[in-house]
Amino acid sequence: MSDYSAPIEEIQFALETVGGMADWPSLPGFAEAGDDLVAAVLEEAGKLASEVIAPTNPVGDREGAVLTDGVVKTPDDFKAMHRAYVDGGWPTLAFDSEYGGQGLPGALAMAVTEMVTSANMAYSLNPLLTSGAISALTAHGSDEQKSLYLPKLISGAWTGTMNLTEPQAGSDVGALRSKAEKQPDGSYLITGQKIYITWGEHDLAENIVHLVLARLPGAPEGTRGISMFVVPKFLVNADGTLGARNDVRCVSLEHKLGIHASPTCVMSFGDEGKCVGYIVGEENRGMRNMFTMMNHARVGVGLEGVAIAERAYQKAVIYARERVQSAAIGAKTRDAVTIVHHPDVRRMLMTMRAYAEASRAIIYRNAWAMDRSHKLENPEGRKAAEGEADLLTPVSKAFSTDLGVEAASLGIQVHGGMGFVEETGAAQHYRDARIAPIYEGTNGIQALDLVGRKLNADGGAHWRALIDEMRTFCQGMDRAMAPQQETLMAGIAALQDAAETLFANGFERIVDTAGAATPYLRLFGTVLGAYLLARQAMEAERRLAAGEGNPAFLRAKIATARFFIEQILPAATALLGPVKGGAAHLFDLDEEDFARA
Amino acid sequence: MSDYSAPIEEIQFALETVGGMADWPSLPGFAEAGDDLVAAVLEEAGKLASEVIAPTNPVGDREGAVLTDGVVKTPDDFKAMHRAYVDGGWPTLAFDSEYGGQGLPGALAMAVTEMVTSANMAYSLNPLLTSGAISALTAHGSDEQKSLYLPKLISGAWTGTMNLTEPQAGSDVGALRSKAEKQPDGSYLITGQKIYITWGEHDLAENIVHLVLARLPGAPEGTRGISMFVVPKFLVNADGTLGARNDVRCVSLEHKLGIHASPTCVMSFGDEGKCVGYIVGEENRGMRNMFTMMNHARVGVGLEGVAIAERAYQKAVIYARERVQSAAIGAKTRDAVTIVHHPDVRRMLMTMRAYAEASRAIIYRNAWAMDRSHKLENPEGRKAAEGEADLLTPVSKAFSTDLGVEAASLGIQVHGGMGFVEETGAAQHYRDARIAPIYEGTNGIQALDLVGRKLNADGGAHWRALIDEMRTFCQGMDRAMAPQQETLMAGIAALQDAAETLFANGFERIVDTAGAATPYLRLFGTVLGAYLLARQAMEAERRLAAGEGNPAFLRAKIATARFFIEQILPAATALLGPVKGGAAHLFDLDEEDFARA
Repeated sequence: MSDYSAPIEEIQFALETVGGMADWPSLPGFAEAGDDLVAAVLEEAGKLASEVIAPTNPVGDREGAVLTDGVVKTPDDFKAMHRAYVDGGWPTLAFDSEYGGQGLPGALAMAVTEMVTSANMAYSLNPLLTSGAISALTAHGSDEQKSLYLPKLISGAWTGTMNLTEPQAGSDVGALRSKAEKQPDGSYLITGQKIYITWGEHDLAENIVHLVLARLPGAPEGTRGISMFVVPKFLVNADGTLGARNDVRCVSLEHKLGIHASPTCVMSFGDEGKCVGYIVGEENRGMRNMFTMMNHARVGVGLEGVAIAERAYQKAVIYARERVQSAAIGAKTRDAVTIVHHPDVRRMLMTMRAYAEASRAIIYRNAWAMDRSHKLENPEGRKAAEGEADLLTPVSKAFSTDLGVEAASLGIQVHGGMGFVEETGAAQHYRDARIAPIYEGTNGIQALDLVGRKLNADGGAHWRALIDEMRTFCQGMDRAMAPQQETLMAGIAALQDAAETLFANGFERIVDTAGAATPYLRLFGTVLGAYLLARQAMEAERRLAAGEGNPAFLRAKIATARFFIEQILPAATALLGPVKGGAAHLFDLDEEDFARA
Repeated sequence: MSDYSAPIEEIQFALETVGGMADWPSLPGFAEAGDDLVAAVLEEAGKLASEVIAPTNPVGDREGAVLTDGVVKTPDDFKAMHRAYVDGGWPTLAFDSEYGGQGLPGALAMAVTEMVTSANMAYSLNPLLTSGAISALTAHGSDEQKSLYLPKLISGAWTGTMNLTEPQAGSDVGALRSKAEKQPDGSYLITGQKIYITWGEHDLAENIVHLVLARLPGAPEGTRGISMFVVPKFLVNADGTLGARNDVRCVSLEHKLGIHASPTCVMSFGDEGKCVGYIVGEENRGMRNMFTMMNHARVGVGLEGVAIAERAYQKAVIYARERVQSAAIGAKTRDAVTIVHHPDVRRMLMTMRAYAEASRAIIYRNAWAMDRSHKLENPEGRKAAEGEADLLTPVSKAFSTDLGVEAASLGIQVHGGMGFVEETGAAQHYRDARIAPIYEGTNGIQALDLVGRKLNADGGAHWRALIDEMRTFCQGMDRAMAPQQETLMAGIAALQDAAETLFANGFERIVDTAGAATPYLRLFGTVLGAYLLARQAMEAERRLAAGEGNPAFLRAKIATARFFIEQILPAATALLGPVKGGAAHLFDLDEEDFARA
């Protein structure tokens, strides 16, 4: 048994209240996504995650992925787990039915992925990267590429990767140097090395489809000279059968702080001059293709923050309800009680719970906006939804992953000395969580994306619409949430003031805008999270009054929203000052004055 | 070579501005502690730390301490390092000259210990625990015990440990069950198991002196029935030579998240019924003795937060000045620059720097208050200093160690993907740092100590005196720090309001006080840190105007203080609301409602 229980009641409530679930069947292609099917999907996925996947998490951490003679071996239990995931049809959930997918809402797939990720974050990266490859090929691949690769990737028979990073080109993707040369047959020969390639090589699938960014001879410098290629580990014959081994190999694995079971590969392309790739989309348009993968992957990485916060929370709750230590504060007896009775432990548990639920609400809302951006029939509706999805993506990624690290750290603290002992398992979450603020664009890059591209998109229409929505809702907050109205309104006002300030900065104050990006994103995420929790609390109150649902769960939703607004939000609201300060004092020191000697 | 440079200029400035250095020679016994000696001590200690100790940090992490057949082996380099530390006379610095110590100020020893801890935190625990044992024996041991043990402990020939925790008795020390039975010869037979015993067994010293808490037959329950015993690994003959091996053994080592080179032992006393101990002080007064060790050790653990923040900061600075990535924001060219030029990286570096310097200032001030509490000739002065030292101790411990974890996490983030790769070394700091909020009383326990015992001591005289001092200084803040006056004053006002609220709560609202303890401690630490940095900045400005000192360093002090007050302080000031909220919503959920299934 594992210590993870899929939080199905909370997940379904989040889908209903902020994930648009009631509206799913009205969208083209989602007719089947009604209550019964959703409930069945969540229940089955929950079983898979908690019973099959979650128990593999500690062994994956201990044994890790091992590279021997170019072959990466995963822990034994991983084969059976992957087989169960694939055989259950889980990879196919949200993909195009033309290629074997089930065509269900992305928000629902997000909920399923959350459970898989809580269960085993290192493993979850395998389907996450595969999804990214599917998205890119669906959007930009030729018909032949689609029919050759998509069915196998969607079924889970093959997996996918994303090859951007090179040693000199991390956040600055445009600096990459891998090369592609066109051959007479229309294919390309690829040469170069890529680093940090997640699940770049492994023993779980019969083929691995690498999407690789490289430069053609004479291509323009920077991101405008990058093209995307599909480079299969085994070449694929026209009939879909596997051909020769391609000249692409994993030459080493990183020794990492966490996610040990996820092989992080250095991939070498064309060591023997025989690495064959096929261009995806047009020459020099690879960066645009890659953004298709990245936007999807960024929300997926944000989800890792939710997933780790949730699992760390559950683990801490179990311990706090078992561990007996000291008498209750203010009690008449000296009898020792379980530590869940101590106010400070409660504070930690409520904080972790609130972090998980606030970031979950943001991500599900983001996923629902993505669904609408694809499926709404009205082009204006699609455009508005796309603008919202784009605006929320950096917040989903950075805010949630920062909270994931903080929650995992609190999870250790709840365990006291036991938390620092590896066998307890709390430490794994703290180690695993730490990658999420880094990859798929560091959280600093996300913040720059938010204050740059996203804040300015369509003249600021999208953030203004969101703030209007929040303010209108908050003005109507009464009954159970009336005591929190003023505090939430202050947060919304601060967020608006901050956004107006950065929006007005323009290019003359671009350094101030960049300097303020991180506290602005934190302010944004916290206010948005508080608002979404408040919405959930109002719906919980409605259900309580109507006698619907589980009263204990609904009362806990209200308490969590109140706690978040009263205890977490104020410190974020106070970031308005730092945001307005911009880059003040960031450049007061000369570079060499940072050094101590 | 290591990546740590002892920050001697900053340390000496902190000792001068908040560590009372100018006043040291005026205190009885400190006459020698003048400028020249202090400078020489800091320089030599800095060399030892950066050249001899720091290079052992990665190997200690990789190899760790290993238990084989009851013997704990440390990494090879550790013997030479420990030898250099002992032969240099460093253990003796602040101890009683009657027993071979140098009798120098504790604040100076704190500065030296900071450097040793930055250099190798796992190793630093060995002298830290030894210091605790020396303090307890000095305060409570018999003359015979003092002459038998102190010279060897002070010289570093022997080391000491602190044996409190048992599996059922962590934060609740009074629940311990180890037993002591008096023998006809006046010694005691000790039986029991202790866990989490830092450096409980190792191969660096010829003897280990365990201080052990145990119960006599029929002793009162709880902390009033605990006695302290000295239990040497090898019995000590009357002439000081070593006798028989005592019946105390390390039976296992914990497999930990960090500080791998520090053996965390399960110690078994009296498996063969032959474990001999000698009572320290009176029967049933062991808890009071243990507090003597703990108060010292708590500030020492707080120092670990400073030390890790400093080392993580330096490492991040080195990387940020080497790593080339992307063009500067707003630059006219697309030429890539080192990342220290990017505003968000600057923000991370300034935050880490400010954390290290603010928490250092708090700890040094605390150490100076401890020195005054021991050395001032005027009893009222001693009492006031003792009250201040006691008040600051939980803040030193908890605030600094929380910042240490946050700084280490930022240190990883500055490195991007490299930060997650173990060989880089940033991850070790993140792992090592995580223990400090847990041991020597969890940070939750520290917060309870602050709002309970410390806030109420002497009718609240000590926190009122501190707030008066801060307000008076702040009212006089002008010139360089005038723009920060209002923000700092708001922080001081919030701290006072919070303190008055908790002070007025009394027993009727004890649960609210306990519920507010953690945000109150954070508010306290941040305001105090801001104030001490502001004091340093004003002195820096005075020196700049007078043409004294290194202008670049002094300008950086001013910039760091401004950054801390404008960018870090406001979010803490906003914790006043959460503090006043007390335990609201912490107990809204029934215990079982925390669980997800």
